[in-house]
Amino acid sequence: MKNKKVAIIGVGFMGGSLALALREKFPNFIIWGYARNKSAYDRIKKAGVVHKVERDLKKSVQDADFVVFALPVRGIVEYFKKISSFVKKGAIIFDLGSSKEEIDRAALKYIPKTVHFVGCHPLCGGEKGGVEFCVKGLYRDASCIITASPRTAATKIVVKLWQQLGGKVIFLSSKLHDKILSSVSHLPHLISFSMTDFISKEYLKFSSRSLKDLTRISDSPAPVWTDILLSNKENLLRDLEGFIKILKKFDAAMKKGDRRKIGDLIIRANKKHQVLSNLT
Amino acid sequence: MKNKKVAIIGVGFMGGSLALALREKFPNFIIWGYARNKSAYDRIKKAGVVHKVERDLKKSVQDADFVVFALPVRGIVEYFKKISSFVKKGAIIFDLGSSKEEIDRAALKYIPKTVHFVGCHPLCGGEKGGVEFCVKGLYRDASCIITASPRTAATKIVVKLWQQLGGKVIFLSSKLHDKILSSVSHLPHLISFSMTDFISKEYLKFSSRSLKDLTRISDSPAPVWTDILLSNKENLLRDLEGFIKILKKFDAAMKKGDRRKIGDLIIRANKKHQVLSNLT
Repeated sequence: MKNKKVAIIGVGFMGGSLALALREKFPNFIIWGYARNKSAYDRIKKAGVVHKVERDLKKSVQDADFVVFALPVRGIVEYFKKISSFVKKGAIIFDLGSSKEEIDRAALKYIPKTVHFVGCHPLCGGEKGGVEFCVKGLYRDASCIITASPRTAATKIVVKLWQQLGGKVIFLSSKLHDKILSSVSHLPHLISFSMTDFISKEYLKFSSRSLKDLTRISDSPAPVWTDILLSNKENLLRDLEGFIKILKKFDAAMKKGDRRKIGDLIIRANKKHQVLSNLT
Repeated sequence: MKNKKVAIIGVGFMGGSLALALREKFPNFIIWGYARNKSAYDRIKKAGVVHKVERDLKKSVQDADFVVFALPVRGIVEYFKKISSFVKKGAIIFDLGSSKEEIDRAALKYIPKTVHFVGCHPLCGGEKGGVEFCVKGLYRDASCIITASPRTAATKIVVKLWQQLGGKVIFLSSKLHDKILSSVSHLPHLISFSMTDFISKEYLKFSSRSLKDLTRISDSPAPVWTDILLSNKENLLRDLEGFIKILKKFDAAMKKGDRRKIGDLIIRANKKHQVLSNLT
């Protein structure tokens, strides 16, 4: 792939890291980063991750071969709408959003038929938002979920692109993606936020490694995670209910002093954990 | 301190690591390890962490200057009872138990007045139980909570001992200890067990770092943790209720689509996490 122009909408941690990785693997690509305001412009400029920082959305997008959306879910939906009138025919749009069904619906609604949309979600991220924290190797060995049909030419190009960056592509429907992500990521974040909120400030100095592990992700940025939780709320509400049911089993067993039941619940977790350990 | 005999009841990960650390820092100490059955005898012998492995409890304890209990809470209570008739006058007993009020009650009931009891809880542990995983430096830089009065001669000796091993001694009442540990350790374990139990086996291969962090401690051994959860159940039941209340706040805000409320809850967690990060 030669001399392609890539426009990145949302040059933060994920988008900026993508820019760095693309520049390394595709030295002929020209990477533009859109900045929605002066402060974003200054930060992106200072980080030096893209070839050109551009304040004008139309100029950023209109002649781009790839348009990448690395924004919180609601931002992606909003910018789909904004670019729909001037995105180039034949361009390939992909996103890095954490929930896929809502983005699919928006793509169907706003993205012209002459443009190719490939929903993506690389499973890597970090608690630290911001272009200042970008890392070139972020996508190396990361699982990259693609929710578009594997058969189109546009998907094949995007697959190749992720693979060149070291990502492992997995195809999933948006529906299944959202179900799985609710369990393996969105619920854990909700739990971590709640645990951190719960604990008394004066007890923090006694925190053990167990608490630190559990609360690590609770510095994940609020705007991003508000969007994620809301955009996947059907799955998440169901999972939260299921999780609370298990907490209540512990509650009931402790109230009864049912040593055997508590032991059984822990052994179930031990065994499942063993499966997880063997996978990684 | 010279030529002291230390009897360790419970030569597993914590007890065995203590034996290794004591041997390094107090080369004149003679460390005996009690083995309750042939299989324990063989494992301890093979690990080579104590000077002598002894199957006879009376022989292990009767002439010991220090008797250390490194067992699950219920085991500690049980062995207090067993040794009460033959523990040496003037001996110092201490334990490494994770809940302190129940152990205090048992000490008051079973340990003769001529013997000194100093309740201890070093805040280090590991998911891996067993003498095979011992590490000499386990107590280095670990916070060691002591629940006995700081003024007695026996306590002063035990303080010195932990400090020599590199531990940082903190005095707390048993009551406050149990309250704090419920929040910073017991509830996080209960949450981790529940999260691991909840997740579908077929989703595990998509687990992100967030899930791995949250589930790491769910391979903590069932016998140890059944005891801990039950021995601190009043505090834990109250904390569990408080934690579920916060989960329900997320639930309600998501159901209403209340973006601002969700953002507020996350920001609260972000801020508390910042306090925790600054502490460590």
